[in-house]
Amino acid sequence: MDKIALVGAGLIGQAWAIVFARAGYEVALFDPAPQALEPARAQIGARLADLVRFGLIDDAEAVLRRVSVTGALDEAVNGAVHVQENAPERVEVKREVYAELDRLVAPGTVLASSTSGIPASAFTDHLTGKQRCLVAHPINPPYLVPLVELCPAPWTEPAVVDRTYALMKSAGQSPIRVKKELKGFIANPMQGALIGAALKLVEDGYASAEDVDIAIRDGIGLRWSFMGPFETIDLNAPGGIADYLRRYGPLYAAIEQDQARPTGWADEALIGRVEAERREVLGEDELKARSEWRDRRLMALAAHKAKAAKDIGE
Amino acid sequence: MDKIALVGAGLIGQAWAIVFARAGYEVALFDPAPQALEPARAQIGARLADLVRFGLIDDAEAVLRRVSVTGALDEAVNGAVHVQENAPERVEVKREVYAELDRLVAPGTVLASSTSGIPASAFTDHLTGKQRCLVAHPINPPYLVPLVELCPAPWTEPAVVDRTYALMKSAGQSPIRVKKELKGFIANPMQGALIGAALKLVEDGYASAEDVDIAIRDGIGLRWSFMGPFETIDLNAPGGIADYLRRYGPLYAAIEQDQARPTGWADEALIGRVEAERREVLGEDELKARSEWRDRRLMALAAHKAKAAKDIGE
Repeated sequence: MDKIALVGAGLIGQAWAIVFARAGYEVALFDPAPQALEPARAQIGARLADLVRFGLIDDAEAVLRRVSVTGALDEAVNGAVHVQENAPERVEVKREVYAELDRLVAPGTVLASSTSGIPASAFTDHLTGKQRCLVAHPINPPYLVPLVELCPAPWTEPAVVDRTYALMKSAGQSPIRVKKELKGFIANPMQGALIGAALKLVEDGYASAEDVDIAIRDGIGLRWSFMGPFETIDLNAPGGIADYLRRYGPLYAAIEQDQARPTGWADEALIGRVEAERREVLGEDELKARSEWRDRRLMALAAHKAKAAKDIGE
Repeated sequence: MDKIALVGAGLIGQAWAIVFARAGYEVALFDPAPQALEPARAQIGARLADLVRFGLIDDAEAVLRRVSVTGALDEAVNGAVHVQENAPERVEVKREVYAELDRLVAPGTVLASSTSGIPASAFTDHLTGKQRCLVAHPINPPYLVPLVELCPAPWTEPAVVDRTYALMKSAGQSPIRVKKELKGFIANPMQGALIGAALKLVEDGYASAEDVDIAIRDGIGLRWSFMGPFETIDLNAPGGIADYLRRYGPLYAAIEQDQARPTGWADEALIGRVEAERREVLGEDELKARSEWRDRRLMALAAHKAKAAKDIGE
């Protein structure tokens, strides 16, 4: 199988190692901090054990055997068909990393960034091989949440996007094509719109933060775990999506007008209010345990979705 | 067990019959069209068979035995502790139905409307018993999606909201308290914000409608099936929700500014575009079969959530 190089052995690098090694790829995980390497491999082993427990993989040892760790970048990228970069989210750092990668890596190899916030054009414009660079943004953790947002710079070759798309598909991920650069790609603008509406509902005193959460997790969020918003509304009117928009568009337009003001993202009073409401539901000392609960629920959901896709179809 | 009266035997009335009869309540289902009654009961039977198949109930016959149908409103509401109205979504119709219900129904009985778009104040202001009226808005179908939005009119007695809350809880639903009247209650403003962002992403040429859907169903939508947006971000920064908002608020604010324009809800060119894209993914003649697929997936998800809540916790 082909070799994948991962640059940066933090949480995202570790998660990518699971994605690619699980799919059979040979994975070289590089980190400039040599003391980070063995702990990263141990963490990967622990996550693989979780995946076995939830029936998501069969043989953790075989997967882990395909992951090697190294403190030598040239060794990591040597022979790799794809380099996935997970360096710190600072543009100067990325510019340096890409300059080094572009020098070291064979011209046919794709350089993909896991960045969630920086467009590829901001850290690849100075490279000879800038046409083989793009963003491949995962949702954490990518071995449980398959979406990968592929976002090219203006100079990225279309074939590079196509190859990355095919690679991600072959690894069991769900790549999408972001057609041109924008802030936050595709998922975050939708998440931001929903969080913004949620914040306004609490700020205006219509509901508690907990009740807003219930409205999603026991209400409209259920369908979104197996259908997107367009498919959802396409099936919610007899004549499909156009019928739906003509029926309910006026209601949504009126709601939108009522909510038409910037969200108080930096409003400390609002932040304090939702913080206080959340701390009543979940103490600060419970955040860690609850995050582990979330990961177990995500694993159970991934196992459920795989089974439902097989039993009922996709 | 207490008796529940359902006014209107269409899809929503049938679904409420399943909710209450499943929980052990005696259900009287009224419809002014006598020819609608037996088919409604047959439909309920068919849905109950589906629920058995997915392990969501054990004994369909016992549930169905608790559902009686009648064309006589006085008989339906006689002795009921709660009346759930599912009349057509026209304010004049509701005003007439409520005048009749208020006259017929014992003073201690709650009158709740399933309306998705009309505030209770618009059809209860003329009633002697207006203080016992409120909206109890389900998401379709309520036997699979437990959210119920309780929204009082300004004159609704708080005890009426409390009793309806307790009733819905006892029936296995997830009630939330909408503290004052607003268009679309709590879930629809969030759904509208998300659909609006999705429409703008397609309109601006950033992604296809199908890729927008993938970004939700294989991405950020997964968590929303068991956690609301506030809990999600509370667990996505080491210091909880306040930490998250201070870290990522500026990014969301910038995205919001980029998207700050009214959504083209009535823009026929945009409607035609998403319609055309959807029809490439799913033909018009496949809408019905796909809706049946959605219902099966929702049932499988409900069974999964019940199991995960038991195995992993809530």
